[in-house]
Amino acid sequence: MPSDFAARARAVQAARRSLVCVGLDPDLDRLPASLTAAYAPADALAHFCAAIVEATAGVACAYKPNLAFFEPFGAEGWRALAATVAAIRRLAPEALVIADAKRGDIGNTARRYAEALYDGLGCDACTVAPYMGHDSVLPFLQHPGRCAFVLGRTSNPGAADFQEADCGGEALYRRVMRAVARWGTEAPGTAGLVVGATAPAALDEAGALAPGLPLLLPGVGAQGGDLEAVRAAAREGALLFVNSSRQILYADAGPGFAEAAGRAAEALRAQLGPPTP
Amino acid sequence: MPSDFAARARAVQAARRSLVCVGLDPDLDRLPASLTAAYAPADALAHFCAAIVEATAGVACAYKPNLAFFEPFGAEGWRALAATVAAIRRLAPEALVIADAKRGDIGNTARRYAEALYDGLGCDACTVAPYMGHDSVLPFLQHPGRCAFVLGRTSNPGAADFQEADCGGEALYRRVMRAVARWGTEAPGTAGLVVGATAPAALDEAGALAPGLPLLLPGVGAQGGDLEAVRAAAREGALLFVNSSRQILYADAGPGFAEAAGRAAEALRAQLGPPTP
Repeated sequence: MPSDFAARARAVQAARRSLVCVGLDPDLDRLPASLTAAYAPADALAHFCAAIVEATAGVACAYKPNLAFFEPFGAEGWRALAATVAAIRRLAPEALVIADAKRGDIGNTARRYAEALYDGLGCDACTVAPYMGHDSVLPFLQHPGRCAFVLGRTSNPGAADFQEADCGGEALYRRVMRAVARWGTEAPGTAGLVVGATAPAALDEAGALAPGLPLLLPGVGAQGGDLEAVRAAAREGALLFVNSSRQILYADAGPGFAEAAGRAAEALRAQLGPPTP
Repeated sequence: MPSDFAARARAVQAARRSLVCVGLDPDLDRLPASLTAAYAPADALAHFCAAIVEATAGVACAYKPNLAFFEPFGAEGWRALAATVAAIRRLAPEALVIADAKRGDIGNTARRYAEALYDGLGCDACTVAPYMGHDSVLPFLQHPGRCAFVLGRTSNPGAADFQEADCGGEALYRRVMRAVARWGTEAPGTAGLVVGATAPAALDEAGALAPGLPLLLPGVGAQGGDLEAVRAAAREGALLFVNSSRQILYADAGPGFAEAAGRAAEALRAQLGPPTP
């Protein structure tokens, strides 16, 4: 298996003919009753995620566990998170694991967060917040073979508040994208960007401002992202991870939830088309 | 005990005659050998933090556990974090607990992070990153009696990269401060700001742009913050938490580490002077 993050990603995307990243946001309030009745809360999350992974293993090129949904359960939540990563390694060994954590802090602290996500949890990638600047991001780029997706232009309504702020004639997110591209040159392959599929212009700009950086695209599905813009970026050869969470996880609330998730992931794969060879 | 965050803070600051917040960044590499030899790593962190709390309980108005230093140990790390919060409640029952987590994500995810920090860990306050805008911050303001300190102008070198970006004639951090003040009006008392003591101008501006918001000030000590600017803000009646981490925690690496930490916290209290009555 190639050790470089991008090479591994290209290989699994080609094998699965898929750009689909399955976001694992296990919301206890939306889990099937069969699971919540049978297990303690954190165990229910882990069982739910494992069932989703099993049902989507033939379709997903990556999984993105969202730490927020595990942390309310404290130590048990982190145990469920580690069990979820282990389930991905067992059931979908080629898939990449992206820890959606959006961490960001001063240098000596960022170093510990990177350690927690890359070494502790053993994830291949993570998400990082840029507000605190270079010393908060660089420690995540000092792990060869891993990739830190830094928030560029996010998919949510609040993205307009600061990311779209006019900074000397251009939006702040463009400055962030350019900075991440620059920081990434110090350790090629270790930096990527988060660009919401709800912001097609930003997706287009990312290709110009940060050429070659892998892009993690949330906002497809429940958030109403622009699939045509995503397909266009894919045709130009960008390395994309197109994330869908709720639309796949909660496709069906009954005992057939896993099969329904598998079908929803299949449908998204078909909509996106295969990666560019 | 008053249930309002600011009232509780004013009461404990008056009782301790102190603005000192002790940052709990337990770095395994810097812990006394007596602890690392006797305990498993995560347990060593918890024992270290409890000893620091015991030694500083008469001086600190708040404690700020930094989640990054616990997370590399996974579930055991979160158990040590919960044990640290419990130790604060036992040994320094009036002190406030600020979870330094710098979380920030879309609305339904931010809600879970707030739940994890406020309900799960039972902290009184936390730190939040603003890059994703209003829907990433508002869920933290929906917990009456708690306080979310949003990053305004941070203390680290990278703060200059984006926070100082010129947005229509003013630095981005000023726009953030103003927005947080506005969001805070929806649930008075639940929003605060992080302003590095290394940025005295920003500290001054926070008083004007976000009047009345409590301020968490990192950057004193190891980072070289400006104590005179901090004292000036205190004299004007701002509710300040002046954080010091490394200077207190690692005042002595030997078996007398806790007593040395107590003396370092005392010294900082004396330097800062008492809160404005």
